[in-house]
Amino acid sequence: MTQPGLMMDRPLLISGILTHGAAQHGSQEIVSRDTHGALVRQTYRDTARRVRQLANALKALGLHSGDVVASIAWNNHRHLEAYYAVSGSGMVMHTCNPRLHPQQLIYILNHAEDQVVLFDTTFAPLVAAIAPHCPKVRAWVCLSDREHCVSVSGLETVLCYEELLNAQPDDFTWPEFDEKSGAVLCYTSGTTGNPKGVLYSHRGIVLNATTSCLPDVLSLGTRECVLPVVPMFHINAWCIPYSAMLSGARLVLPGPQLDGASLHSLMESEKVTISAGVPTIWLGLLQYVDAQGLKFSTMRRTSVGGSAMPQAIIARFNDDYGVEVRHGWGMTETTAIATLSNLSAADRSLPAAEQYAIVARQGKVVSGIEIKVVDENGKELPRDGTSQGELMVRGQWIIERYFKTTQSALVDGWFPTGDIATIDANGVMNIRDRTKDVIKSGGEWISSIDLENAAVGHPAVASAAVIGVKHPKWDERPLLLIVRKPDQALEKDEILEFLEKRVVKWWLPNEVVFLDALPVGGTGKVKKSELRQMYGGVFTSEAS
Amino acid sequence: MTQPGLMMDRPLLISGILTHGAAQHGSQEIVSRDTHGALVRQTYRDTARRVRQLANALKALGLHSGDVVASIAWNNHRHLEAYYAVSGSGMVMHTCNPRLHPQQLIYILNHAEDQVVLFDTTFAPLVAAIAPHCPKVRAWVCLSDREHCVSVSGLETVLCYEELLNAQPDDFTWPEFDEKSGAVLCYTSGTTGNPKGVLYSHRGIVLNATTSCLPDVLSLGTRECVLPVVPMFHINAWCIPYSAMLSGARLVLPGPQLDGASLHSLMESEKVTISAGVPTIWLGLLQYVDAQGLKFSTMRRTSVGGSAMPQAIIARFNDDYGVEVRHGWGMTETTAIATLSNLSAADRSLPAAEQYAIVARQGKVVSGIEIKVVDENGKELPRDGTSQGELMVRGQWIIERYFKTTQSALVDGWFPTGDIATIDANGVMNIRDRTKDVIKSGGEWISSIDLENAAVGHPAVASAAVIGVKHPKWDERPLLLIVRKPDQALEKDEILEFLEKRVVKWWLPNEVVFLDALPVGGTGKVKKSELRQMYGGVFTSEAS
Repeated sequence: MTQPGLMMDRPLLISGILTHGAAQHGSQEIVSRDTHGALVRQTYRDTARRVRQLANALKALGLHSGDVVASIAWNNHRHLEAYYAVSGSGMVMHTCNPRLHPQQLIYILNHAEDQVVLFDTTFAPLVAAIAPHCPKVRAWVCLSDREHCVSVSGLETVLCYEELLNAQPDDFTWPEFDEKSGAVLCYTSGTTGNPKGVLYSHRGIVLNATTSCLPDVLSLGTRECVLPVVPMFHINAWCIPYSAMLSGARLVLPGPQLDGASLHSLMESEKVTISAGVPTIWLGLLQYVDAQGLKFSTMRRTSVGGSAMPQAIIARFNDDYGVEVRHGWGMTETTAIATLSNLSAADRSLPAAEQYAIVARQGKVVSGIEIKVVDENGKELPRDGTSQGELMVRGQWIIERYFKTTQSALVDGWFPTGDIATIDANGVMNIRDRTKDVIKSGGEWISSIDLENAAVGHPAVASAAVIGVKHPKWDERPLLLIVRKPDQALEKDEILEFLEKRVVKWWLPNEVVFLDALPVGGTGKVKKSELRQMYGGVFTSEAS
Repeated sequence: MTQPGLMMDRPLLISGILTHGAAQHGSQEIVSRDTHGALVRQTYRDTARRVRQLANALKALGLHSGDVVASIAWNNHRHLEAYYAVSGSGMVMHTCNPRLHPQQLIYILNHAEDQVVLFDTTFAPLVAAIAPHCPKVRAWVCLSDREHCVSVSGLETVLCYEELLNAQPDDFTWPEFDEKSGAVLCYTSGTTGNPKGVLYSHRGIVLNATTSCLPDVLSLGTRECVLPVVPMFHINAWCIPYSAMLSGARLVLPGPQLDGASLHSLMESEKVTISAGVPTIWLGLLQYVDAQGLKFSTMRRTSVGGSAMPQAIIARFNDDYGVEVRHGWGMTETTAIATLSNLSAADRSLPAAEQYAIVARQGKVVSGIEIKVVDENGKELPRDGTSQGELMVRGQWIIERYFKTTQSALVDGWFPTGDIATIDANGVMNIRDRTKDVIKSGGEWISSIDLENAAVGHPAVASAAVIGVKHPKWDERPLLLIVRKPDQALEKDEILEFLEKRVVKWWLPNEVVFLDALPVGGTGKVKKSELRQMYGGVFTSEAS
């Protein structure tokens, strides 16, 4: 029997981050791009005051601890205020992905039993489409001032966020409750079946937000200015809305304008030093600065996750623009960042290309998380950098079971991620594929991600996808789908010749298809299921 | 009612730091100065292996979860291994301050019910003095190899640490238990009564270790090399033995050699970038590099706490040596760092002298901790930088009650620190005095610390102390005690003239006494109680 420790029993709550930020970094600034284009500036102290007003407003709407409040919103200061007011009050903040199909949104709003929906004006048409099917929602609140407040066809009343706030006093005592209480709810947009909800706890979020400030993770502090491009409707924007306030970093919220020109201009004018988002965003930004012959004056580092960032792009950001890329991995079920590429002290004396090769992997787990890879029988595979199997994860901010289910989602206490990965002796993890995307050719595995990364290394390729297609002889063979850069005349032979030097011969795609665009889903990832549906039959008649 | 979150339930345990460090930063190095002078190098991976051997050895000695193991040791690799093996096994690591009086050590060893004592060879005479009075200790283990193992007069058996380890296999499964369990025990050396034990929890240590890695706290990561001078027998060496491994920083443990020459040489040869310790150490180091005309090649930052570091010294480190000083505050009851000076983004554009004035305060609370100052009735005072009252603290790693007591040490849920402080609008806390050291003169308070800092600013002053002395007219008046630097001819008139320009007139000490040395206690702090005993009567006959 251990002896009981004799420390205070204080819960880890999201409201604690808010009061800490306001008290210790009160004059630090949040810069927010309003949905209508204007930049709004307010300090952490002001923000905390407005959050307390919002907490009073939610109470005035008749909401109680445990109730669920939905948001359909961009990264902006009102969305941030909602993050703190809702969870701080003991309610659940349900962040909705506006890129989901309206039918899916209707499902999740009803499944979550949302009482109030906060939405940006952009999404008024979407709200018009879903509101009639969400009878339990008692208030729809437009995240704007009176001037910009929209009416929604079919909705009798739309409340104005700023009016709700202004009607309330700015004193509010944050309740104390169990740190394992639900704080934020986010649904995964699974490819089959209905979306599944993940209910994050206060404890998990506070622990992730703290850990992600560490120098080898996001490295957030009072000397930094961070711009999260990763959306606040998608796994908590990697907890940056929390970690910025906890660490005292300046926070820039870009609103709806996520094109290369808008991001570059905001990064320059607000002297942003750190950013984070999915690779697609960085590819767009890179193309823009390339075309315009621009530089980054203050941007020093960006963290990338959601899908793989090709090594060639990592190298270009570093060599041509002086921007360090850190490559991460996480999923809806892991609250935020679970691993991040992180060069060891020894790695830093390697030649640049070898360093980029390490960064192109998904990196090491951050403190609080453990990973392993297992074979089909659940047996742990060696950490040798080559043995690949399903990635399993466990730790402080990993799901135990989905919302409104009773069955654990775990296998022997570990969450099976559906990713195929390797782990090397230094703990560096490398995602090789999704279990459902890996190509099984003649009893061996071909990594669709490795092939895609190799193809994107060609200067004429804008984007690429590889899918496994049924094959009469080899079971499956890879098909490469390419979107060319504008005015580039790349053809099949040239790209195959390019790939021949980069992958083993039996990995070479049997066919190459050129498209104008790849189908992209709600979270910005290529919809391979759609590609498989369209091209699944191309090899059935041949025996190449 | 809040909704229960649906995340995994994983405890925050010290063993988790060890397994994380070994898995993610396995090739990172620990450099340890052996008690006999040699430098020992081992990786985190090696360290974890030796820790598992030690855990097996403790089990073989018949110890169980909840048992207490004492250490009387320097900062070295074996002491570090004990930190992890003892707490990781669910036992309590009792770190003993070898500078305590033997009578006090006997008291705490018996009070803690220590089963095993681990000691460095340096302390063999101390062990000889206390062992006969500690009948419940069943094994005394010398932290050395067989060659350096000492015999202790009066002890039949002294076990050899390396022999114990070598006899054991290196596989050990770390038990899982409640994160609020006791992990480490440390006694405060109160000035009156018996020492009181503080039993730190796994949760508190893991949370402090994580938070202290943040860029605005110690800023620990794989790019840093940290040398904790603050002893591992004193409030967990500010948790650096944990935070280094958690963050992957290189760790240099200086052993018993803490003089300026040894420290400077080790910092240079091991390319140390970050250090931490009490001001006395830095004063010694500064005098040494000054005298020898040396520089620091890699040292960039040092964190200072335990007592106040004068602004003049902070400025010299920065201006003359390029070493940033961060000034902190914590006490045995706060596990490790509770506040640290931390320039805000705006502060960094102030003139250097103003920045140093901010750094000379004790700074802002780190995330997880809250502070307030209260008047004699417990009423919170305004955060205006001038209202002074007793400093109260609460948070994740603050004591609730002392070891083997049933009564809470708290007042309305807050721990009263016995320090007098101010807090300003930016949350910056400034310790003005100890409640027992503050000088009450004519109904007003004079800060002994402010006077001491002003006096130390004089170039001929090596160290200074100010005490309040009974005075027939003013109740108390300040007496200044000075140790001159070698070959300096400073006299009373000159120092008073110097002070006149720096403090208000009624603060000026009524008398100045020159001494060869100030009496220093077990933790390196000036023993004001002794000074008060010696000089308490000097004003009783006058009415100046």
